[in-house]
Amino acid sequence: MQVGVIGLGSMGGGMAGAAARAGLQVRGYDVRPTTIDGVTPAASAHDVAEGADILLVMVVNAQQLEDSLFGAGGALSGLPKGAVVIASATIPASDAERIGKRVEEAGHLFLDAPVSGGAARAADGELTFMASGSEEAFAKAAPLLDACAAKVFRLGPTIGTGSTVKTVHQLLAGVHIAAAAEAMALGVRAGADARELFEVICNAAGRSWMFENRVPHMLDRDFAPRSAVEIFVKDLGLVLDTGRHLRFPLPIAASAHQQFLAAAAAGFGQEDDAAVVKVYEKLAGIEVDGR
Amino acid sequence: MQVGVIGLGSMGGGMAGAAARAGLQVRGYDVRPTTIDGVTPAASAHDVAEGADILLVMVVNAQQLEDSLFGAGGALSGLPKGAVVIASATIPASDAERIGKRVEEAGHLFLDAPVSGGAARAADGELTFMASGSEEAFAKAAPLLDACAAKVFRLGPTIGTGSTVKTVHQLLAGVHIAAAAEAMALGVRAGADARELFEVICNAAGRSWMFENRVPHMLDRDFAPRSAVEIFVKDLGLVLDTGRHLRFPLPIAASAHQQFLAAAAAGFGQEDDAAVVKVYEKLAGIEVDGR
Repeated sequence: MQVGVIGLGSMGGGMAGAAARAGLQVRGYDVRPTTIDGVTPAASAHDVAEGADILLVMVVNAQQLEDSLFGAGGALSGLPKGAVVIASATIPASDAERIGKRVEEAGHLFLDAPVSGGAARAADGELTFMASGSEEAFAKAAPLLDACAAKVFRLGPTIGTGSTVKTVHQLLAGVHIAAAAEAMALGVRAGADARELFEVICNAAGRSWMFENRVPHMLDRDFAPRSAVEIFVKDLGLVLDTGRHLRFPLPIAASAHQQFLAAAAAGFGQEDDAAVVKVYEKLAGIEVDGR
Repeated sequence: MQVGVIGLGSMGGGMAGAAARAGLQVRGYDVRPTTIDGVTPAASAHDVAEGADILLVMVVNAQQLEDSLFGAGGALSGLPKGAVVIASATIPASDAERIGKRVEEAGHLFLDAPVSGGAARAADGELTFMASGSEEAFAKAAPLLDACAAKVFRLGPTIGTGSTVKTVHQLLAGVHIAAAAEAMALGVRAGADARELFEVICNAAGRSWMFENRVPHMLDRDFAPRSAVEIFVKDLGLVLDTGRHLRFPLPIAASAHQQFLAAAAAGFGQEDDAAVVKVYEKLAGIEVDGR
């Protein structure tokens, strides 16, 4: 079973490695040359796709997905008929529909398959997939999904459903991180002990997965990027674009997006997304410090 | 051990019953006459406090707490010196400080002790307490806390810290409910299956305690109030008052508060707080229906 992977960043690189460890033959390509244990480097998207049964594309946005498939030296010029393209970037559902249609018209299968879980779980092959596509596409993609997923949600045959569910997920994830920052900063401003406050919330109804995961970065003053502020500038932007396209108001997501924009404006765009707390800290002259 | 309870609503009534089942002698008073198994009814706040070692006050806001303690026929005119007042309503930290000082000056102990967990856990004696006060106050209050709490966070001696932590908790709880509504409504508007969307989010990093607890009310179209929209009109209002008092901006909490106000404006104030989803539903002509 031959697998090609385009995009070898923290997510795609981890997935490529997990696929290799699962015994699949994996070739990988990234615009920035990258070495992954067990993964054969390829010189272009075209080269990575040649002879592949499964092509995983884990890039940053819809434009990169489109370029890597259809651009000059793109993957579709090399990909065998009947192979499956697994599109795992977070992209608008409308883009997934359009790109999927074009891939299918070229004689390939297509899975609209965004993921959740972060870099560590990508490397462990423990991601959650939110995937939609034909039975044939799921069947062909199974070896890669088995290697990379703890859980695959099969969301029916309609390309776009996977991306819609991921968009909704990112709305919640982004709001929860920004709300965690707002809440922790308020508590510290009001005189609470930051680490004690964290412990209480983790044991009460105000907790979220993101609160439990990201607040420790704030408390430890460790803003090395696992996922950067700029990712939520992008992903909540995508959420808001979806709302605008559908004529659907999203006031809470819009408010959270502004806080990530404020963090980027203040120079924290490449720091961990928990650095959104610095927007509040800088304004009020406090620090959510738990050391 | 003699316990008085003022406020026998869904929270206070449950706590009074749990205290009685734990073997404490409990008298209860509410402005609306209410019968609780094992709890002796009293005719006034004064009567409930006479001879009590512990006085639990579980009313709606700071005004009611103040009236029940210091007003005509209030509890402090009957409460023995050295008894402890446990103030468990959600109130601003500045009010807790002021009221606690006045109670202590009258020769009593005071515990600033808001709770989290909801009516069902109140009845089961399984609440989380976020409490601050003196060692003596904690010691005197122990039998009631043992009867009503699954977990007591002891947040130091400073009256106000308990209320600050509860305020931060309510910020997160309110934002998470409104965000759950916004996200589910967007997903349905975009064509996703509501129940499938719920299942995916519950297994991914976008989940929160409130999402898992409140979205089923939306899916089942069951808006019988466990906790009403008006509670978050009040509690997020209290959060915003705290921010205003401290000169601290809370844009995400403010946005969520507007959505609860919108739900109240549309006539859903007495429905379950999950009815905040109806704001989005009415606007867009959709329903987050999982039946």
